[in-house]
Amino acid sequence: MRDWSGGTAMTYCVGLYLEDGLVMLADTRTNAGVDNIATFSKMHVFEKPGERVIVAMTAGNLAISQAVVNMITEGVEDPETGHIETIYTVPSMFRAAQLVGDTIRKIYKTDGEAMQAQNVRFDVSIILGGQLKGRTMRLFHIYSAGNFIQATADTPFLQIGENKYGKPILDRAATHQTALTDGIKLCLVSMDSTLRSNLTVGLPVDLLVYKKDSFQVAMQRRIGEDDPYFKMIRQRWSSALRKAYRAIPAPDWGV
Amino acid sequence: MRDWSGGTAMTYCVGLYLEDGLVMLADTRTNAGVDNIATFSKMHVFEKPGERVIVAMTAGNLAISQAVVNMITEGVEDPETGHIETIYTVPSMFRAAQLVGDTIRKIYKTDGEAMQAQNVRFDVSIILGGQLKGRTMRLFHIYSAGNFIQATADTPFLQIGENKYGKPILDRAATHQTALTDGIKLCLVSMDSTLRSNLTVGLPVDLLVYKKDSFQVAMQRRIGEDDPYFKMIRQRWSSALRKAYRAIPAPDWGV
Repeated sequence: MRDWSGGTAMTYCVGLYLEDGLVMLADTRTNAGVDNIATFSKMHVFEKPGERVIVAMTAGNLAISQAVVNMITEGVEDPETGHIETIYTVPSMFRAAQLVGDTIRKIYKTDGEAMQAQNVRFDVSIILGGQLKGRTMRLFHIYSAGNFIQATADTPFLQIGENKYGKPILDRAATHQTALTDGIKLCLVSMDSTLRSNLTVGLPVDLLVYKKDSFQVAMQRRIGEDDPYFKMIRQRWSSALRKAYRAIPAPDWGV
Repeated sequence: MRDWSGGTAMTYCVGLYLEDGLVMLADTRTNAGVDNIATFSKMHVFEKPGERVIVAMTAGNLAISQAVVNMITEGVEDPETGHIETIYTVPSMFRAAQLVGDTIRKIYKTDGEAMQAQNVRFDVSIILGGQLKGRTMRLFHIYSAGNFIQATADTPFLQIGENKYGKPILDRAATHQTALTDGIKLCLVSMDSTLRSNLTVGLPVDLLVYKKDSFQVAMQRRIGEDDPYFKMIRQRWSSALRKAYRAIPAPDWGV
């Protein structure tokens, strides 16, 4: 992928939509610098403990991603009602996804033409997950066009960015019934495959776990090169893969 | 990926450059129809037993791929000497790769502009492997620009097409010292990951094994849905991956 102007290195983010909650993991190759709400560069947490947890992970053009995060934090005016809505005031996750989508469309109206003139693709994708008190927990994938899809029990994971290396293990092992701790393992294994095969996706990675109906973040952790648990996973996974392929009997095809 | 005019569905081809020989595997989602040398749609074998084995696997625009295969078979005139060279007369694998590269450039000169006018990308990539009597066995990746790279002991595999799903296992397990039968397993596992994660890459697949210094094809086999060995690999690999991730201890991060 080209290095877009206002751009970012390649990203990999994955979100699991599980019976017991959400597991979200993002790499951090680009150091996006400071913005006014986030402690993590590609993972943005909007939390009012006891009332709402909304987490956004972003991929694509960094200028667009940051504009989206800033605008949903500061508020977007509804042109009809004049009402200013923010990610902290939306009444549901569905409305939160709409807010993000509308914001992307606004940015496209403002910046799209100028970007095109510079041959820069208007490229952004966002995984948005969370829950508001009294409402259903949800996980969305929002596209550059501002439209979105939702994870379901049948399709319990969403990925953005450099998603292919880490997809095979999710295809095979991720189900809606997967336990949260297993979900953490799966996301880390999926990230490990991506890190190994694509040098533009980089450590550290940011992990977040949300437990359904808790309305607060259960765990948030930055995992670097030296994290003993991730190190152990990387070693064991590599050796397990090698062992698994060695254990397959050879074909009797006369070679 | 878009459906190019004169195009093909997505492809996945992989070639291993091993101490003992070459293992080459191609999917066959597009039925390219008949051309005058090939028994396989994406794998083209040019063999004079005892003298030369050259195998080409193609990805990208099908019209270009077929034009390349036809032209290297029928011969390309050297504009300076008037000499007509074919894939059956080239004196070395390096010259074979140059012939393919030059042919791609010729096709670009003829068709490139018209394709661009139709908004069709000039997209072709070819894995070319083999050996001529008295010469070194080689494996090349030839690009749309006609330039190419060569597999080495350090980088013993080359992939074209939808390469990402199947790369993690190769990154971890493929070495130049891998035995031919293990190479077959690795290629089939890599293909299985691709088939599972991307529905546009399809069965059957075409497998070819060449043993170094033999100057004839050791094995060529079309593997379909019902092939018992491939079926066994697919089942074992899936269950091995699931088992491996389950065997990883859970993190003690208080989730």
